[in-house]
Amino acid sequence: MKLARIRTEKGICPAMIDADGTPRDISTLVPDITAAGVSPEGLTALATHNPEAFPEVKGEYAPVIDDVRRMFCIGLNYSDHAKEAGMPIPEEPILFMKTCPATGANDPITLPKGSEKTDWEVELGVVIGSTAHHVSEQDALAHVAGYCIVNDVSERAYQIERGGQWTKGKSCDSFGPVGPWLVTADEIPDPQNLSMYLNVNGQPRQSGSTATMVFGVAHIISYLSRFVTLMPGDVISTGTPPGVGMGMNPPQYLRDGDVVELGVEGLGVQRQQVRAYPA
Amino acid sequence: MKLARIRTEKGICPAMIDADGTPRDISTLVPDITAAGVSPEGLTALATHNPEAFPEVKGEYAPVIDDVRRMFCIGLNYSDHAKEAGMPIPEEPILFMKTCPATGANDPITLPKGSEKTDWEVELGVVIGSTAHHVSEQDALAHVAGYCIVNDVSERAYQIERGGQWTKGKSCDSFGPVGPWLVTADEIPDPQNLSMYLNVNGQPRQSGSTATMVFGVAHIISYLSRFVTLMPGDVISTGTPPGVGMGMNPPQYLRDGDVVELGVEGLGVQRQQVRAYPA
Repeated sequence: MKLARIRTEKGICPAMIDADGTPRDISTLVPDITAAGVSPEGLTALATHNPEAFPEVKGEYAPVIDDVRRMFCIGLNYSDHAKEAGMPIPEEPILFMKTCPATGANDPITLPKGSEKTDWEVELGVVIGSTAHHVSEQDALAHVAGYCIVNDVSERAYQIERGGQWTKGKSCDSFGPVGPWLVTADEIPDPQNLSMYLNVNGQPRQSGSTATMVFGVAHIISYLSRFVTLMPGDVISTGTPPGVGMGMNPPQYLRDGDVVELGVEGLGVQRQQVRAYPA
Repeated sequence: MKLARIRTEKGICPAMIDADGTPRDISTLVPDITAAGVSPEGLTALATHNPEAFPEVKGEYAPVIDDVRRMFCIGLNYSDHAKEAGMPIPEEPILFMKTCPATGANDPITLPKGSEKTDWEVELGVVIGSTAHHVSEQDALAHVAGYCIVNDVSERAYQIERGGQWTKGKSCDSFGPVGPWLVTADEIPDPQNLSMYLNVNGQPRQSGSTATMVFGVAHIISYLSRFVTLMPGDVISTGTPPGVGMGMNPPQYLRDGDVVELGVEGLGVQRQQVRAYPA
């Protein structure tokens, strides 16, 4: 099952995606796609319905959950990306937070005021569906409501050159596209075998597979759950494969007018127009 | 004006603190103390009332805002603390996130499972009352709803020895006491001249003043607002003075049964019982 939230004139409309990729209005079933609603029970109830039974709904994609409270991010989680970043492969998952509000899959990326180094990162996002605290790796995937694409947009100067810790470069407004769909876990039997890509202005930039993650999804959930209690609606963005702008020679960053397109197998496509900070 | 949220049998009761430090039930004025409610307009409206006009309410303190969505923390922001931590004085504010749910001022601190290095940090907390994006240092304090105490409880092994970035050691359950009161900014004309202390089992551990911050509150707000858009209800914890357990010789950490008491001038006192992870 693929869920989404569509912006309409009347507000956010919860939707189920049909076999053709068309959003269908399920507001007669639930008022919105919420953290509470993506519990195992909530998803099981929704899954009894056929999307084709509902009317089409048109509009832009909003973030996949009404209230993405926390975006946990795993750093340097693809060995080749660690190499291009000039960093050692981590011995344990590196955790940092992205604290901007989540944005829709196709919402524009606004370059921060004065930014010179805004970069892209296609990532597999994991949406937590039930509370996870000290869960084993074996049990971890049972806490996953589903998966989505995240573009972990990053300002490299803010992230690296402005004094310790990465949050500063990860949390500017518009840096958190999450979606377009929440694809429930039953449709992704193996999250460690998904191809992924990112293009800028049609030029291939990132290409990889979740198969080359240093730490897989189950390990990440189990590991994080020892430090924090993961809660429904939390999103974990699991790291990016090689091909970020910082790793190019010379480095290349996003500019006003660029178009970023990114996809993860089975999870749809995001497409963002880059625009300058408003004058 | 001092605001608080009191846990009662009927749920959370919004309160105003009277001249004797007694909470008075203001639920006839507002249903709760919310991020929206601590706007300049909201606070101005509340300030027309006299706490003594309202009935007393008994119960434990809950976090000062109903929904502390983000806790921004500033690292190594007292020069003496940077020294005891063996770190250079930062050239720019170091930002990290605390992602556990906020807890009440006197709620127990639960040692994480297997933790050996749970430490204390008395801090001045700043509660944002209105959206701040690229604000000048001169205008920054106008965005402050008020101040509160934060104990930035920290697991040093998780923070420092488990692979980059500090969030892991800052976000365990119970690590976020915020309160007891939200003291509105008009009562704290100079946030850079507040004495502060922390005792463990009655023994003085931290003693300092916000006068020795490397970066003052106005600078921190202005600075952060260049990277993130600060929103009403955000809490910024502004760093800790010397005297943390990690800096003692030999280092000393919290143990089951310890009692931590901490205060910041004008903002009340927190008192936490430390307890072991449940067997």
